[in-house]
Amino acid sequence: MKISIIGSGNVATHLVKAFVASGHEIVQVCSRNLQHAEELAAQAGAQAVNRINQLNDTAGLYIISVSDDAISQTASEFPFQDKLLVHTSGTTDAEVLKSRSESYGVFYPLQTFSKQKDVDFDTVPLLVEGNTDGVTKTLLKLGGDISGRVLHVDSEGRQRIHLAAVFACNFSNHFYALAEDILNRGGLEFDLIRPLILETALKVQSFSPSAVQTGPAARRDYATINKHLKTLEDTPGLQALYEKVTESILGFDPEK
Amino acid sequence: MKISIIGSGNVATHLVKAFVASGHEIVQVCSRNLQHAEELAAQAGAQAVNRINQLNDTAGLYIISVSDDAISQTASEFPFQDKLLVHTSGTTDAEVLKSRSESYGVFYPLQTFSKQKDVDFDTVPLLVEGNTDGVTKTLLKLGGDISGRVLHVDSEGRQRIHLAAVFACNFSNHFYALAEDILNRGGLEFDLIRPLILETALKVQSFSPSAVQTGPAARRDYATINKHLKTLEDTPGLQALYEKVTESILGFDPEK
Repeated sequence: MKISIIGSGNVATHLVKAFVASGHEIVQVCSRNLQHAEELAAQAGAQAVNRINQLNDTAGLYIISVSDDAISQTASEFPFQDKLLVHTSGTTDAEVLKSRSESYGVFYPLQTFSKQKDVDFDTVPLLVEGNTDGVTKTLLKLGGDISGRVLHVDSEGRQRIHLAAVFACNFSNHFYALAEDILNRGGLEFDLIRPLILETALKVQSFSPSAVQTGPAARRDYATINKHLKTLEDTPGLQALYEKVTESILGFDPEK
Repeated sequence: MKISIIGSGNVATHLVKAFVASGHEIVQVCSRNLQHAEELAAQAGAQAVNRINQLNDTAGLYIISVSDDAISQTASEFPFQDKLLVHTSGTTDAEVLKSRSESYGVFYPLQTFSKQKDVDFDTVPLLVEGNTDGVTKTLLKLGGDISGRVLHVDSEGRQRIHLAAVFACNFSNHFYALAEDILNRGGLEFDLIRPLILETALKVQSFSPSAVQTGPAARRDYATINKHLKTLEDTPGLQALYEKVTESILGFDPEK
């Protein structure tokens, strides 16, 4: 399929790589920052442009992969009412593209992307949604070329999944960062707890997280909890967070 | 080395397996619950007992691996003043064993253990501490037999590492559990976000977590943050937690 992509961030970069690897053709890469567009276009043998009105009409699919708050503005400049247009956002309704094209949808890769780290796209769940069954089918087929795990999810479901992902991924990563800070303040290396972080994530690949919860709160070890709160007295922000999360573990009662 | 172990929980179980695999002899397993003692002893060809006064004096090392709040009481019954005695706790001072033996210390495996999941012990950091240089040396040597990563850390350092581990491991796992709950409430499968969880943990194996933080808070995407807070209105506990962690990400300023 001939594809043009608007955006040059983490998601755009990894999508372009995955499409190229699976034999699809990238026609143009459009980014306000021309250098970024050129860097990404070079990886795909595509043309780089820095204005949406420089997009040509030879692609069969146009992908808007920009920050959530820029999708609407970007879409408003899209010139081809008869071309399939999708965005890649977890949180934005498909409907934001409605007035811009007869065929529109969402192509959302549920993964955390950083430019400096390669990702095995085959394991990345792709959540797709089209405004018609035909569009959904096209997106499911395209998704199947780059991932072993493509599914149709509507905007409401996708937004719920994205929210869950914020808890599981963004928030967990922040707790890794806080742990690094705690270690560094004591002159200790973050590297010490890397195996623990990996094992914690590996464990829930086959178990439910609530079944393998460990730590002072899970075993109602109030002596250790109080010791930790005392250790954190110098950093009131961390102390308050420790208290909140501990309370949440103590009171956790999942929906069955 | 001949080793007897007091306790039959997750840490005791994995330690016994690792010692046996590296050729050490487990003499006795002592647990108040005789059946637990028998199950673990059977894996090591050891004798099972359920009272500390049934321990014989033929081992060279006695390991107390019980919950933190039971260490002191357990140690108080230990009958051999001249035998090397250690506990396996991240948070408990070595000094709690001082009055019970001339040779004492800590042998703390920094990992999250569940009975149902095997662990490659070779990658588990072992933090050891002895009351004398000789004891420390003995523990470093023993640790080296079961792990490629043994280091001497004093009680203060160990407690700081344990606190960091609570943030990085226990708290992250709780956020996985909350994510599962959010998905289940929408009839969606936790399996969808498993690849994301694994990738998040893999990423910080080579990068600093603060360098790879993603998500709405990291990119100051207040529209998405507010949308998420609104979605969480039905679950005020989750909403408050989302708000706290988001504030923490927004204001994060690590010690350099």
